[in-house]
Amino acid sequence: MTQAVDFWFDFASTYSYPAAMRITEAADRAGVAVRWRPFLLGPIFKAQGWDTSPFSIYQAKGRYMWRDLERLCGGLDLPFRRPEPFPQNSLLAARIALAGFSAGAVWPEEFCIAVFRAQFGEGRRIDDPATLSAILTVFGVDSASTLAAAQADDNKARLRAQTEEAQQLGIFGAPAFTMPDGELFWGNDRLDQALAWARR
Amino acid sequence: MTQAVDFWFDFASTYSYPAAMRITEAADRAGVAVRWRPFLLGPIFKAQGWDTSPFSIYQAKGRYMWRDLERLCGGLDLPFRRPEPFPQNSLLAARIALAGFSAGAVWPEEFCIAVFRAQFGEGRRIDDPATLSAILTVFGVDSASTLAAAQADDNKARLRAQTEEAQQLGIFGAPAFTMPDGELFWGNDRLDQALAWARR
Repeated sequence: MTQAVDFWFDFASTYSYPAAMRITEAADRAGVAVRWRPFLLGPIFKAQGWDTSPFSIYQAKGRYMWRDLERLCGGLDLPFRRPEPFPQNSLLAARIALAGFSAGAVWPEEFCIAVFRAQFGEGRRIDDPATLSAILTVFGVDSASTLAAAQADDNKARLRAQTEEAQQLGIFGAPAFTMPDGELFWGNDRLDQALAWARR
Repeated sequence: MTQAVDFWFDFASTYSYPAAMRITEAADRAGVAVRWRPFLLGPIFKAQGWDTSPFSIYQAKGRYMWRDLERLCGGLDLPFRRPEPFPQNSLLAARIALAGFSAGAVWPEEFCIAVFRAQFGEGRRIDDPATLSAILTVFGVDSASTLAAAQADDNKARLRAQTEEAQQLGIFGAPAFTMPDGELFWGNDRLDQALAWARR
């Protein structure tokens, strides 16, 4: 029986961008259901002794990543523009997405895709509430009440719990894909393999 | 004009194993010439503040890597056995391979493949000179004179220079693929993309 796949991502994660842009079509083609799981890498990196993105700490790896991402986006026909600064604080975007998913709203997937495109396709700042409000408005979502729901205590706690769950599942980076049998796949490079595993 | 590709690997590098096992056939199919470049990750990791493999330092990542490698080898029909201890000292194996490549001998590629298979396919110790001597003997190579050439000062210096060149090319992990136009590709996952790039 085909397993549903959990798609774990952080809005500040560079390789989560191509994964978010192509997972819906790839999963539809594979006949696999996907649940979007925004979480925060920050606390997970902190537990590994890092106070920012490893791409900022390890400079050769960071330089490589930007060139690799540029080539990757070129091959996928995705717009690419390196955002400044990097990494950006993804807390508010994650809270908004999670509030929407938890409420069973129809807009969160499109919101996530639009946030990724704004940041990595257009170089916009996603740590600016104005950017996120503008995206919500495009999808016909009332931004004032949505921001209020995102910043409510119960939703803050929900994001903390989501991040703790990611850590307990063994997730150490993003994007990551998990499924009920316990298999974990890490990285945009593993998306197709994760979907194939779900169909075994 | 098709570029030749430099294949950079460390014998202790887990993902260098599947890359070494499949690069010859993949490159032949692509019509791309490959130069095998053994080097040492140790000095490069040290410059990043690590005194051992990051898979040993960051435990969640290490646990994931072993499972990922096992799945990967399963998909490629490669034997897999997790070596103990890990990582193993790859210095002597690298010196032997480099001495052979530098002398223009015919055995070094097969030697490299056999060393990777011994370690990650059979769980043998490649930091034991007896393992390396036995492999050389299988290929009809005199192990005493080869070990002497490997441990000679000029060959030790050659391996240091090779490792410095890797670092200057921006290499921070293995396997890596470079070519004359300066493009760098990192990881077994990028082998096919690197070969395609060389043919552009």
